[in-house]
Parts: sequence; structure tokens; C-alpha cells
Amino acid sequence: MAESPTAGAESPPAREDYPFVLPIPTRWADNDVYGHVNNVEYLAFFDTVINHWLIHQGGLDIHAGGVIGLCAESHCEYRAALAFPDVVDAALRVGHLGRRSVRYEIALFRGGSEYVAATGWFVHVFVDRISRRAVEIPAPLQAALLRLTGGGAVR
Amino acid sequence: MAESPTAGAESPPAREDYPFVLPIPTRWADNDVYGHVNNVEYLAFFDTVINHWLIHQGGLDIHAGGVIGLCAESHCEYRAALAFPDVVDAALRVGHLGRRSVRYEIALFRGGSEYVAATGWFVHVFVDRISRRAVEIPAPLQAALLRLTGGGAVR
Amino acid sequence: MAESPTAGAESPPAREDYPFVLPIPTRWADNDVYGHVNNVEYLAFFDTVINHWLIHQGGLDIHAGGVIGLCAESHCEYRAALAFPDVVDAALRVGHLGRRSVRYEIALFRGGSEYVAATGWFVHVFVDRISRRAVEIPAPLQAALLRLTGGGAVR
Amino acid sequence: MAESPTAGAESPPAREDYPFVLPIPTRWADNDVYGHVNNVEYLAFFDTVINHWLIHQGGLDIHAGGVIGLCAESHCEYRAALAFPDVVDAALRVGHLGRRSVRYEIALFRGGSEYVAATGWFVHVFVDRISRRAVEIPAPLQAALLRLTGGGAVR
Repeated sequence: MAESPTAGAESPPAREDYPFVLPIPTRWADNDVYGHVNNVEYLAFFDTVINHWLIHQGGLDIHAGGVIGLCAESHCEYRAALAFPDVVDAALRVGHLGRRSVRYEIALFRGGSEYVAATGWFVHVFVDRISRRAVEIPAPLQAALLRLTGGGAVR
Repeated sequence: MAESPTAGAESPPAREDYPFVLPIPTRWADNDVYGHVNNVEYLAFFDTVINHWLIHQGGLDIHAGGVIGLCAESHCEYRAALAFPDVVDAALRVGHLGRRSVRYEIALFRGGSEYVAATGWFVHVFVDRISRRAVEIPAPLQAALLRLTGGGAVR
Repeated sequence: MAESPTAGAESPPAREDYPFVLPIPTRWADNDVYGHVNNVEYLAFFDTVINHWLIHQGGLDIHAGGVIGLCAESHCEYRAALAFPDVVDAALRVGHLGRRSVRYEIALFRGGSEYVAATGWFVHVFVDRISRRAVEIPAPLQAALLRLTGGGAVR
Repeated sequence: MAESPTAGAESPPAREDYPFVLPIPTRWADNDVYGHVNNVEYLAFFDTVINHWLIHQGGLDIHAGGVIGLCAESHCEYRAALAFPDVVDAALRVGHLGRRSVRYEIALFRGGSEYVAATGWFVHVFVDRISRRAVEIPAPLQAALLRLTGGGAVR
């Protein structure tokens, strides 16, 4: 269960602030004993929208590619409840794109609405798969991430 | 997979900085495609050590109690990898105890060692189970949380 | 990881054998260390397609309804691998509908294809939410389950 | 939630019928909206006790070993509820040991008691990590599995 009765003071994010939105249906097991999607699953939605973009748009090969993205930091602010069988719209943009790392900003909306369940960020450091040392972001991934830095819908 | 090749600049936390440590064995499914515990599971360890304390020390009744704790904010910095079948030692203290909310600070160690896998925080707002409005933390929970504010082992 | 190199001797199920099919996108964390969706998640897909049907078609109220369905038995045969970011098509029919229990039969297809990843079954016993004693299946749920007993697409 | 109000007709298993028992603490997120450990997690306990044995006793190298075990079939009968913060004792034995596959039998007890929450089985087929074709079980794994075929505690 994750819900913040005190959140909402600052102006909430809008869907058009994010270039990519991935609908993620909730699952039965996402709900916890308090009847709503457990806070931990929100982070799983972050993980999923990010890697979906990297694989489909940046050619990330999670099985055999030489460079992979590891999570260095994650943060989530819970604003309202979600519950199975809601669909979550996971909205993604890039807040900062470095040479070896990227900071994503994510908002979770209840499917098809402007109801904001959570906002957060997530930092990926790109590393060599074997040595796990930080490396420069490969060009195709960089290009895909660049497309998430502007406002408006990605074309 | 969660790992930060750049972390470690600041001095790492030590086990004795946390009054309560709960060993949590990893599970097969915690490992992701990169071979280590997925970053999302780290937050599940936070959830688990916190609620374990509230239930066993503060009398929290997650099934029928009138007051429950909802997650308002979570944060995690990943410092090193964990992998099944590691045991994780989830170390817990209270950083700030308010009238209606509490901020926990957590460190995850590899079992029995000073190897720090992650540090983070987690904010609980206590609410009425039915109305979901913020309420004062009940006395038994407050007492249990107070015992997590000092340094040293809880007796 | 779940995969059966020996399966496939009997004739595989076809999508039209199931009255209801729910697309379930995989998530990053579904993949395990062997690179494919962990066997346990297959059961989460079962749970999700079943409860999705009960809630949307049978009016099951998982939060406050007087009668709930508890799992008494589950079974899964793994035929081929799935991997994030695949979409899974969870296909559902009712094999046996009793007065107090129901046996579902499920097949998991890779999204939009006849590729069969798994088949299995799942038994729900309906009980009173408070006493947890078996009760007769309420009429609206029974009607919804009846519609899953025939072949062909549900209209 | 998983619970069978009709189970228990046949005589339940006893802890001494299983050569290996692994305590697995439940986690906050294991509980579902009905207040008990979700049926899917029971399978995660199966996975965990099995691979724990294979790694620690049979030298299975899940990261780089040439032979891995894939799940071909799983089955679970739910007898009684578990709930966080229960500890689950996952009891394991081998029912059938073939040249290329093994059938495990598992019982889940509430920690330290004879309270049986579930029984089930799980079939592993051992395959070459790259080709995913079935291969003979390597000698060290075979020896470890053999020790699970007899009754009584493993020494």
C-alpha cells in the first residue's frame, strides 16, 4: 500500500510533460494487505517503462549486449492509491543525460486519466557487462535517450 | 540488478549505527537477468524490516487495526550487488519521528559483514484505516519508534 | 526460468479453445538469472486473468464483498520460454464448475501468436470472507463462470 | 491468498519425511488483499529451497555453470493460510531422480510447527545453458539429489 494524504501541495505533473507513456496493467499480486498496489511495485513500473524504451528504441540487448544499465539511485513520492485491476500509465522523460549515466523522471498515472499516483526518478549508470565498470553510453542508446529529453510526444 | 560503480565516496554506514537488524534471506526470483538482486527488491527489504518492527515491537495489527502506515516516500542508493542465495541484513533506525509520520533510514548489508549494498530512507504516514486521513501515531507504535531513534543496539 | 525441452508430445492448445484472452505485458523483474520469465510468474499470470474476469464480468468485490475465491490447487506445465519485453496472452476457460468451487484451465501464449508457453489449471473455492468457510458461488459470479465453459469467443 | 477449506482428508505430511528444511521468512509484499500470503509466493518458496540445496550442496553455478535446471512442471495444493510476518519452513525431498530430470516433493510448514500450509511438487529438467537441450545431471548435482531421496535428516 502506498498513499500520501499530505502530498499534492506542488502542482502535479501532466501527461504531456512526458515524451513516452507505457500502459502497464496491474496484476492480482500487486495489491497488498491494505487493498492497494504495494509501494514496491511502483518501482517495478519505473524499471519496466525504462527498459522497454531502451530495448525497443535503443537496441539494448539485455541477454548478450556488452553494455548494460545498472540502477544507482531510485526515488518515489507516492501521491495516491492504485489498485488491481487498474492500468497504470508509466510516463517517462530524461531529466539529465550524462556521458556514462542518465537520470530518468517518471510519473505514474491511472490509465487514461490525469490522476497522478506517483512521481519519482531513477539513475542508470552504464557499465561493461563483464567488468561492471562504467563506460560511455553507446550511440544508439544515447540517441534513444536524447529523444526523451524534449517535451511533447516522441515521433 | 542494482549496482553503483561510482558510489562509495562518502563514508559508508556501519552496522552499529542501526538499533535493529533483520536478516532477510534472498529468494531465487530476486535475481534478475543481470545475475544480481533486482533494484526493486531492495525496497521490499525496506518494507519488510519496517513492518516487522512495527508488528513485533509496536503491536501494529495489519489485518484489523484502526491505524495503518502508508508509504509517502522512498529512496534508495545502490552501492554494491547482492545475489541469491545471499542473506541480507536489513538495518533500521528512525531519522525523524513526527506526530503523524516517521522517516526511517535503512542500510542493507550482506549477511554478517560490513559490505554495504545500499542505503535509503522511507517515510510512513499513519492514517485511519477507513478514511485514510492522517492521524496521530498511537502510543505503542510511538514507543516502538522512539527506541529506533537512539544509537546502539535495542535492548 | 521455466522451459521444457521434452514437452510438446501431445497436441498443443489453440487460442480459439479459450473464451477469454487477456494480454499481460511482462515486466523487467519477471526475467530471472537464466534470462527468461521465472516459472513463478506464470502462476501470477493465472491469478491475474482469473481475477480480472471475476471482477469485470462477475462483479467480484475484492475489497469488501462477502464472498471471495481462495486458491485450493494450482498446476503448470512449462512448454517454452517467455522473456521481457514479451506480451503474454493469458487464455482462460472453465473446465469444471461446481456449486462451491471452480476449476479453471489456462494457456499462456506469446502475444498475438500460437506459440504456447505453458498450460495449467487452478482451482478456486469460494468462501465467506470472515469465516473462510466454503459457500455457494453467488449468482453473478456463477453466470460469469458459465460463460467460460463453452468454446468460442465470449460475446 | 491461498487456503483450502476442503483439504486435509488425507493424512498430512510430517517434517521428518523431508531430509532438508529451509526457513524462509515471509515479506510484507507476500500478503495479498485477502490478508494472507498469495498462492503464487508458495511456488517462490519451492524455487528457493530447491536452488538453495543445488547451490550449497551440489555446486550449481547459476551465473556461469554449463548445466542449469529448468522448471518443466509445478504443482501446489493449498491447505492452510500463511501471513507475514510468519516464517515458512520449506521442506524438501526427491520423489524421483532420473538421468536428466528430477521430481522434487515439497511441503510448507509454518515455522517450527507441524502446521502444513501446502504440499506440492516441482520437476527440473537439466539442460545445457547455451543450447537449452536436455543433458545428463552432472555427478556433483546427482550426488546432492541422491541425498534427498532417503527419509530422515541429511547429515
